Amino acid sequence: MSSKAKRRYAGVDIGGTKLHCVIGDDEGRVIARARKKTKPGLGFEGVIARVCELVRDTSSEADVPLGKLAGLGCGAPSPILPDGTAVNAPNLGWKNVPIAAALKKELGLSVRVANDCDAGTYGEFAHGVARGKKSVVGLFMGTGLGGGLVIDGKVQSGGNGIAAEVGHMVVMVDGRRCGCGHRGCLEAYASKTGMARYLACQVHCEGRKTLLTELCEGDYSRLRSSVLQKAYEQNDEVAVEILNGAARYLGIGAGNLITLLAPDMVFLGGGVMEAMGETLLPLVQAGAKEVVFPAASFEHSKIVLGTLEDDAVALGALALALG
Amino acid sequence: MSSKAKRRYAGVDIGGTKLHCVIGDDEGRVIARARKKTKPGLGFEGVIARVCELVRDTSSEADVPLGKLAGLGCGAPSPILPDGTAVNAPNLGWKNVPIAAALKKELGLSVRVANDCDAGTYGEFAHGVARGKKSVVGLFMGTGLGGGLVIDGKVQSGGNGIAAEVGHMVVMVDGRRCGCGHRGCLEAYASKTGMARYLACQVHCEGRKTLLTELCEGDYSRLRSSVLQKAYEQNDEVAVEILNGAARYLGIGAGNLITLLAPDMVFLGGGVMEAMGETLLPLVQAGAKEVVFPAASFEHSKIVLGTLEDDAVALGALALALG
Repeated sequence: MSSKAKRRYAGVDIGGTKLHCVIGDDEGRVIARARKKTKPGLGFEGVIARVCELVRDTSSEADVPLGKLAGLGCGAPSPILPDGTAVNAPNLGWKNVPIAAALKKELGLSVRVANDCDAGTYGEFAHGVARGKKSVVGLFMGTGLGGGLVIDGKVQSGGNGIAAEVGHMVVMVDGRRCGCGHRGCLEAYASKTGMARYLACQVHCEGRKTLLTELCEGDYSRLRSSVLQKAYEQNDEVAVEILNGAARYLGIGAGNLITLLAPDMVFLGGGVMEAMGETLLPLVQAGAKEVVFPAASFEHSKIVLGTLEDDAVALGALALALG
Repeated sequence: MSSKAKRRYAGVDIGGTKLHCVIGDDEGRVIARARKKTKPGLGFEGVIARVCELVRDTSSEADVPLGKLAGLGCGAPSPILPDGTAVNAPNLGWKNVPIAAALKKELGLSVRVANDCDAGTYGEFAHGVARGKKSVVGLFMGTGLGGGLVIDGKVQSGGNGIAAEVGHMVVMVDGRRCGCGHRGCLEAYASKTGMARYLACQVHCEGRKTLLTELCEGDYSRLRSSVLQKAYEQNDEVAVEILNGAARYLGIGAGNLITLLAPDMVFLGGGVMEAMGETLLPLVQAGAKEVVFPAASFEHSKIVLGTLEDDAVALGALALALG
C-alpha cells in the first residue's frame, strides 16, 4: 500500500436537522463517524462552529490529529458556487454564505463544498451501490425530491453549477402546485411535502377518513416516513394510494432521466426510501417501465436502492475532497 | 495555415426523403454541397449506392478527388452503435444495417456514423450558433421531436449509445397517446405528428372548422409546415391554437432540460422551426420560463434558433469524422 493510500479525510453532511461527519481513507473506508444537532437558529457562524467541533471530535475519535487530515469535504442543501459559497439554503436560513472559506479559516484544511444531493450521488458512485459504473443518477425522496447526475465520472450540475434540479422537472403540465411556485413538478407528487399536501386535500376537500389523521395529530405538514409506513402496513386506503402514487411518479421521473441519459444505474435514496425502499422499489421500477423509450434503455439502466444511507453525503463529500 | 487545416472531409445527412452532402474543411467551411432523393424503396444496398454516388459527385464538384478526402461522417435517423450500425430506422425501413462498414468498403474512406439529431446538435456546436459553448441542447421539431445533448464538448447518447430521446420525455402523465405507444411524451404535443392528431380530433370529435382541412385536402397525417404557416398567418383559430400549444410544450421540454442540465445554450431546429422560427421562438421561451428552476438557469441557458438549417446534420457528421 502506497503512502498516499494511508491519507485520511473528513466528510461532513450539513443537514437542516443534523450534522453527520465521517473520517475515512482514499477508498472510502470509514474509520470513525459522529453526529450532532445542526441548530440552524445559531446562524451561519454558530453552525460553522458546531461543524468544526464535530470534525475535531470525530478526528480525535479516529486517532487522526486534525493537522494530519488531507482535506475536508462538505455537502450542504443549497446550490454551491465553485468557490464553496452556498447560494440559498432555505432549511438553514442561509443566503450567499462562504462555507468553504469559513471552514478553511477555522480548521486550516483544504475544503471542498458540494450540493448535498450531488455529494450523495457521488458517494454511491465512488463507494456504494454504483461503484464501478461510469454514469449514475441518484434520486432522493425525502421532504423534497433531490437528485444528482454523474456522467462519465463527473458530477454534472449544469453550465452554471446550480442545475440538476430533478425535483423540478415538470411531469404534469398545469398539474399540482409545487413549493417552488410552478405547477406539475415531480416534487409535487414524489416527496413528503407533495404527499402531505395531497393528504390534506383528501381529508379537507374530499372528506376521506385515514389513520394518518390520528398519526399526524392533524398536522399533515409534519408527515413523517415512519407514520406513512405504519399506515401503509395497516393497509390504510389513503396511505396506500398516496405512497403508491408517489412511487409511480418517482418511477416516471426516473424513467424520463433514463430516456434522456440512459445512465448505467439509477439509485434511490432519501428518508422515504430508507424507510420503505423494499416495498416501494418494484412500484418505482414499474413506473419507469411505463415510460422509458426505447425499452432497451430500461434494461440498461437498472433502478436499485442506495446502500450508504446516512453516510452517502459525507462519503461523497469526502470523495470529492480527494478529487 | 498548417497542412492539417487543408484537409477535406465529406458529411452526409441520410434522411427519409433526401440525401444531403457537403464537402468541407476542418473549420466547417463548405466547399461544395449537393443533394439527391433517398429512394428508401431501393433497400439498404440501393440507398448506400446512392450515398456513394452523391459523395463522388460532390467531391468532384469541390475539385477534391475522392482518395484525397480525409474522412466521411454520416448522420442517420436511427440509434447508432459504436461500430456504425443503424439499429432501427423506421423512415428508411432499416434494422441492424452496417452503414459504416458498407460505405467504407465502397469508398475506401474512414467513416463515422452518428444519430442525425446528435450530428445536427454537434454541427451547431462546432460550426453554428452554439460555437464556443461547452454544453448545448438541440431540439428539432419536425415530423417528430428529436434532440441531441452535447455536454463538456461531447455528444451524450447515454451509457448504451441510444438515449437522448428528448421527444419521449413524459411531460403529461396519462396524457396524449404518442406514436411510441406511451402516453404524454413531449413528441405527442410538440411535433407535426402530434399536431396532426390533435387537429384530426378537433375536426372529427369536436366538429371544428379550420382552413387546414382544405389545405391538407382532408388528410391530416400529411400536415406540412408550409400549410400550418399559411393557416397561422391567416389567423385561423385552430391553427393558432395548435401551433401556440406546440410551441408552449416545446418550451416546457426545453425548460425541463434547462432545469436538469443548465446547458450554455438551447437551440431549436427542424422543419417547423425553419419555417416559423421567428414567430414561434418567443412562445417557446415563454413556455420554458414557466417551468425552469431555479430562475437563474433560465437566464444562463439562452434559447435561440439554429442557424445551419439543412447543413446542420451534414456539417455535424463532418465534424464528428474529424474527432
